[in-house]
Amino acid sequence: MEVPAVEFPLYMMIRLIGFTVAALLVVLTFHYRGGISLYNGALLFNACPFSLSSTYDRSILIGIVIGWLLFTSLGELELHYLTVHPLWSVIGLVLLNGEAMLVYKTLGRTKNFRKLIHLSLQFLSLCSALLGLWAVLKVHIDKGSDNFYSLHSWLGLACLILFSMQWAAGFATFWYPGGSKSSRESLLPWHVFFGVYTYALSIAATVTGILKRATSLQTKHVISRYSTEALLLNILGLLIMILGGLLVLALVARNYRV
Amino acid sequence: MEVPAVEFPLYMMIRLIGFTVAALLVVLTFHYRGGISLYNGALLFNACPFSLSSTYDRSILIGIVIGWLLFTSLGELELHYLTVHPLWSVIGLVLLNGEAMLVYKTLGRTKNFRKLIHLSLQFLSLCSALLGLWAVLKVHIDKGSDNFYSLHSWLGLACLILFSMQWAAGFATFWYPGGSKSSRESLLPWHVFFGVYTYALSIAATVTGILKRATSLQTKHVISRYSTEALLLNILGLLIMILGGLLVLALVARNYRV
Repeated sequence: MEVPAVEFPLYMMIRLIGFTVAALLVVLTFHYRGGISLYNGALLFNACPFSLSSTYDRSILIGIVIGWLLFTSLGELELHYLTVHPLWSVIGLVLLNGEAMLVYKTLGRTKNFRKLIHLSLQFLSLCSALLGLWAVLKVHIDKGSDNFYSLHSWLGLACLILFSMQWAAGFATFWYPGGSKSSRESLLPWHVFFGVYTYALSIAATVTGILKRATSLQTKHVISRYSTEALLLNILGLLIMILGGLLVLALVARNYRV
Repeated sequence: MEVPAVEFPLYMMIRLIGFTVAALLVVLTFHYRGGISLYNGALLFNACPFSLSSTYDRSILIGIVIGWLLFTSLGELELHYLTVHPLWSVIGLVLLNGEAMLVYKTLGRTKNFRKLIHLSLQFLSLCSALLGLWAVLKVHIDKGSDNFYSLHSWLGLACLILFSMQWAAGFATFWYPGGSKSSRESLLPWHVFFGVYTYALSIAATVTGILKRATSLQTKHVISRYSTEALLLNILGLLIMILGGLLVLALVARNYRV
């Protein structure tokens, strides 16, 4: 297939949009939805008394951001009902996953170093996505809501299953114990293809999730159809679609390689 | 980028899933939603007295299918409120669009013949999508509903705009009046990339549309969350995601070319 040669600062645009997506997610979660719920799993889609104007709450927030990398090992502790399904899912499966795929284009070191960073980022991405799944399950179970009835949940689950299989197969073949030369050669193209496909699946899960959230808030008359929050949600969806396009472009572009 | 070599009957699977998608759309529209509305634009999401068990209605249906190709030139006539937004949009932007992209892989004739089929199918696809847009606008305006507030509508509109631009640029450069050799060479990779991207956008628009439809029916208690219709809608969404993956695989596969 013909692939384009890119003449504009692609990585910069990807990082800029990625950063904007993360910022929008934080603004939507903290400013519009009143923050993340620390002690009550039922507050995912509602306002809770977690406010950016309080020094105490801000400190907790900064603590969460710093503690994020360590969080999987912390278990439940005080943060046991932290319900940030959209934040964890999107940051994991879209943003970190994207960066992890780009590693082979952006990092100019040894092949083993790139591999290590790739699999570490993907591991982080998987943990983040699993936390995202756990958060929404926790909320649903606490509320007594239905589970896995929506297309959003089906796509998200399919994405997570594929992602886990990809990671395990990639780890065993390309890292440890490592496959034979021929098995690595035959797996690689499929690993790349399914990687990009899983990424596309994560974007499909995200846009359906955004639509679900917006519709739910609009149906309950929490926000109106043309409210700032509704528009921000739509813009978030569009930005993620654009990000996905640019990222895949960076992966296939003829001339883009460190 | 590494692309896989495919060892299974890819085209057969694509056609099989494409056919299943079309059949599911028809079943969902006619069996579960009571058919398409011939005289009342407000019935898109409701049941209407159009029944497959009536010979009269069946004849109309067959007439519609046969007349579909000619429809754009018929104007409004008796069919002026035909509201089949999902049918036209998905058949146009996903199924026909997919087949049109495959032409370069499946048709073994001359380059000009492939081009002709490609641009004709894409033209049909564009007409079908425009009819899809017109149908939903008609319904919304007749009902006095809001327009273009949802992420689904934004994605659909973005897809349609990109598709039109693609088609116009492709027509002018590769068909008539035709660009210089160098302009054709520099546009081709971008034409391919944006073609695949527009296809991905159409799938994102479709899955959000399916979620919107399911949520709307569930919120109004027309169907339950685990009803057959809800499951069929989700299966339709999953099948379209799988179809998209297989189709892009066929486009990039190393060894798949007539």
